[in-house]
Amino acid sequence: MTLPAELEAARAGTRVPLAEMLDAARFNEAGLLPAIAQDHDTGQVLMLAWADREAIERTLRDGCAWYYSRSRKSYWRKGDTSGHVQELVSVRFDCDADTLLYRVRQTGGACHTNRQHCFYLEVQGDEVVVTDSPPEQPG
Amino acid sequence: MTLPAELEAARAGTRVPLAEMLDAARFNEAGLLPAIAQDHDTGQVLMLAWADREAIERTLRDGCAWYYSRSRKSYWRKGDTSGHVQELVSVRFDCDADTLLYRVRQTGGACHTNRQHCFYLEVQGDEVVVTDSPPEQPG
Repeated sequence: MTLPAELEAARAGTRVPLAEMLDAARFNEAGLLPAIAQDHDTGQVLMLAWADREAIERTLRDGCAWYYSRSRKSYWRKGDTSGHVQELVSVRFDCDADTLLYRVRQTGGACHTNRQHCFYLEVQGDEVVVTDSPPEQPG
Repeated sequence: MTLPAELEAARAGTRVPLAEMLDAARFNEAGLLPAIAQDHDTGQVLMLAWADREAIERTLRDGCAWYYSRSRKSYWRKGDTSGHVQELVSVRFDCDADTLLYRVRQTGGACHTNRQHCFYLEVQGDEVVVTDSPPEQPG
């Protein structure tokens, strides 16, 4: 068996080299994995963005969350323009090594609307309801 | 402005028709959105899978999580084979309407390894460490 399948039956504490996991990770056709950012203190799911191998390595090296922008085709460090940095607590792969979970300490709002998180559009019956106001209203 | 951008400055309680949000959702080239499943009671991020419009509609109608399998090219109701059903608490879109968050009550383990969640491979230095043993060891 190869990674990550060989770890399915592994007990807690089993270790493999990070380089081998990065080689085995199932990046999509664009070379990316979805990366979920979760607030370490509150458990809130903040956002989802995308990371390639280089973005993962920058995240681990710098101790704050880096992503790859599919639209801008460039790396971005969360907070570089907004100041809303994500201090890294941990990075995990899932069982299939095709998704990342960044646990972070979030400064300011994770969302580009300045809301604390991006998931403020909740389905209720046949409607979608905004669950959180933005912290500052324009005008 | 069109959805979802027109809701960026909207205050809590603002409502739009679900059908319009589904029309506006930014499904990928395969017609899918990533769907994060989060345990409603513990806040634990359980897994990430994929949903198209039909899978979202089945989820909302049935009150349990449906996904679309990219490898099997078919719909699957979480738990149909394992019994590990995800009872739906809420479905949310993110600010860009390109990601879903399912909040669920998870029966049994969410992971196909029977672990409670899929994110048991944590980077520690230059290694990846298994954080959770599977609940039952083979053999």
